[in-house]
Amino acid sequence: MRDVTKDNITDTFLGYFGEQTDPRLREIMESLARHLHDFARETQLTHAEWNKGLDILRQAGNITTPERDEFVLLSDVLGLSSLVDMINSSDDGTNSSVLGPFHVSNPPVRDMGADLRADNEGELILVRGRILDSDGNPISGATIDIWQTAANGLYSSQDPEQDIYNFHALFTTGADGEYQFTTVRPVSYTVPTDGPVGELLESTGRHPWRPSHLHYIVKADGYRDLVTEVFPDDDPYLDQDTVFGVRDDLVMTYVKQPASNFPESGCELSGKVDKDYYLVDFDVVLSKA
Amino acid sequence: MRDVTKDNITDTFLGYFGEQTDPRLREIMESLARHLHDFARETQLTHAEWNKGLDILRQAGNITTPERDEFVLLSDVLGLSSLVDMINSSDDGTNSSVLGPFHVSNPPVRDMGADLRADNEGELILVRGRILDSDGNPISGATIDIWQTAANGLYSSQDPEQDIYNFHALFTTGADGEYQFTTVRPVSYTVPTDGPVGELLESTGRHPWRPSHLHYIVKADGYRDLVTEVFPDDDPYLDQDTVFGVRDDLVMTYVKQPASNFPESGCELSGKVDKDYYLVDFDVVLSKA
Repeated sequence: MRDVTKDNITDTFLGYFGEQTDPRLREIMESLARHLHDFARETQLTHAEWNKGLDILRQAGNITTPERDEFVLLSDVLGLSSLVDMINSSDDGTNSSVLGPFHVSNPPVRDMGADLRADNEGELILVRGRILDSDGNPISGATIDIWQTAANGLYSSQDPEQDIYNFHALFTTGADGEYQFTTVRPVSYTVPTDGPVGELLESTGRHPWRPSHLHYIVKADGYRDLVTEVFPDDDPYLDQDTVFGVRDDLVMTYVKQPASNFPESGCELSGKVDKDYYLVDFDVVLSKA
Repeated sequence: MRDVTKDNITDTFLGYFGEQTDPRLREIMESLARHLHDFARETQLTHAEWNKGLDILRQAGNITTPERDEFVLLSDVLGLSSLVDMINSSDDGTNSSVLGPFHVSNPPVRDMGADLRADNEGELILVRGRILDSDGNPISGATIDIWQTAANGLYSSQDPEQDIYNFHALFTTGADGEYQFTTVRPVSYTVPTDGPVGELLESTGRHPWRPSHLHYIVKADGYRDLVTEVFPDDDPYLDQDTVFGVRDDLVMTYVKQPASNFPESGCELSGKVDKDYYLVDFDVVLSKA
């Protein structure tokens, strides 16, 4: 094209593709270019604004390490990560929600009913539920990978003071599909704000907080893997999660219980609880693979 | 928003903005989010594809240095850089075209008619024209900042073998608005292909070539700065410039001339040319500021 104009540049771009281009790649690049070009045309983007956008990417590149990925964080706060989660969620199972960057490989295998608190401070919670198929039948042999923040708002992988496996555990269900464990109430925390994403949040009047949550990855043979989170219904940031992770079916009430209600058996803490605790009931429905 | 869905996430995102947000920033972020979300919804983007996109950005971050900006290159090959140029072009002046990353600060001031070849090989060209306002009147005191590739396809800032000011010059017009200089015919060259942009071009069946060109930045008091390029009409890549820089009014014929036609005065080479040369006529029209 010898006379590229602002009106024909999108078609010119599409005309450059080789005939052998993978059809799915072509589809993605076509949609990307149409939207990118429409964005620039709609906003009448100036050179200074274009360069500011590139600066955000350059700064994200500078601050990104294998442990700290500012590009994922940018996707998170723009709602893209959650949108991709929702697009790829099943229709007949529990909703998925953001994986986040704080999962660790090879979490410690724990017996059902284990107490994850170790030396950590915080309010005692008993989390329990069932892993079910979409007909309501229990799934045996499902694995439940759990992780959460410590009381200081940090995950073990962010905090050199914590053992890397602090608040990480892997459980496997029996024939009843049930699971339970005790831990402390996770806390609300902020996403990292020392990079360009923090600056973007600041300049658009947004806070960097996420409501407190427990992370789950649930897997079972014959079912789709589920990556999700569970939120308490009294968290002040529930209505404005800065990464858009909250779904109706992931919000649970933390129900205060007297010590006398604690299960007499089946938990590592059975017979050892002498104060009020909170009960969190959360059933998970897996979709067929 | 406690129940984010794939249909309401864009509005949820917009609802997070603070009331004090700069209206122009809000406008840009709204358009960006709408297009980004529509892109993901339209393509039903998978997690693997999302991650591949982030990988391109992460790799771009890894390869980018102050001298080599892969994010600008990505913007170039997606047509965004040229589109921003065209959106911000004046309607009554010469079209602008990509600045590129190879301009140097403080180019050497040369007398009108200077020869830029030094020891460089290549076909001799005489480039000349006038700097005019949109009514066709000559502009006195306009500065013309010129740069181009050497015969090996590299700019001085890419090539440690070249003096940093090789093929860089700054001219100033007199009352007649005319300019002229001699140099060698610039060559076609490829954009850098050793990063993720090279991989993207390869996977979409695109070549990395740009048609040969002379770069211009023309400035004059009371007029808008013009950043542009001039292309020869016989370049094989003219119809498929990988960064979309070609505009009709920037394509010139290199007209072969016998040595006897070379100007008898006004050029550093006047009286010294004994072979055929090429004449390139290129008038520049500046828009009022």
